[in-house]
Amino acid sequence: MYKIDHLGIAVKSLAAAKSIYEKLGMKVSPEETVEHEKVRLVMVPVGKSRLELLEATTEDSTIAKFIAKRGEGVHHICLRVPDLAAAVEKLKKDGVRLVSNEIKIGAGGHRYIFVHPQSAGGVLLELVDGGSHG
Amino acid sequence: MYKIDHLGIAVKSLAAAKSIYEKLGMKVSPEETVEHEKVRLVMVPVGKSRLELLEATTEDSTIAKFIAKRGEGVHHICLRVPDLAAAVEKLKKDGVRLVSNEIKIGAGGHRYIFVHPQSAGGVLLELVDGGSHG
Repeated sequence: MYKIDHLGIAVKSLAAAKSIYEKLGMKVSPEETVEHEKVRLVMVPVGKSRLELLEATTEDSTIAKFIAKRGEGVHHICLRVPDLAAAVEKLKKDGVRLVSNEIKIGAGGHRYIFVHPQSAGGVLLELVDGGSHG
Repeated sequence: MYKIDHLGIAVKSLAAAKSIYEKLGMKVSPEETVEHEKVRLVMVPVGKSRLELLEATTEDSTIAKFIAKRGEGVHHICLRVPDLAAAVEKLKKDGVRLVSNEIKIGAGGHRYIFVHPQSAGGVLLELVDGGSHG
């Protein structure tokens, strides 16, 4: 099945950004830092999806650069697709521009790839494998 | 229940933006125009949410202005909340800045309000009433 796995949202301040969701009575995860991605984040579960609020930990972080260029807002949309390998094969055949040529393995073994915004109507689109998530 | 009702995505070209979702095997609705909002749009159902791809029909459309200022990308996030009236009352009490002072009634009778990006970590957040949608 297709679903929105999460939205990655670039924010200047986690504390400020998460408070609206707390005020709405939603649960916000404890803050965690992902050193190699230079971000500090919280997750806000929403139905079967999640909002991922991302704050840069350094000035050369991707998130800091995004905010400098475009302001705060949605940095990427992550869609879960039923069969990632088949999807990537089809996209390549159709000439879709991907950020990397190969599917990557992330935390917890999840498989992902990014479609370049140029091929996705200006949106940075992450695809994750529904097969590895059930 | 909370859920992501839809993401409104500002795009320069509906034809270009929707093709990635078609290539992924997802269903895309026929194009429709909403004259008073100066947009042409398609909906892409994703699990229990939807992507709403929005193309401006005039140069003074909100979507055209957004793209001119920030480029293509996610224009707003629409969350369904269990009790909109109670949520709005609480947000006002907490000093959250809303785009309008009152809940508005949209197409099909759905009730909605926008939280100002200043109060939502830079994101334009639309809240719709879970009560009126079941």
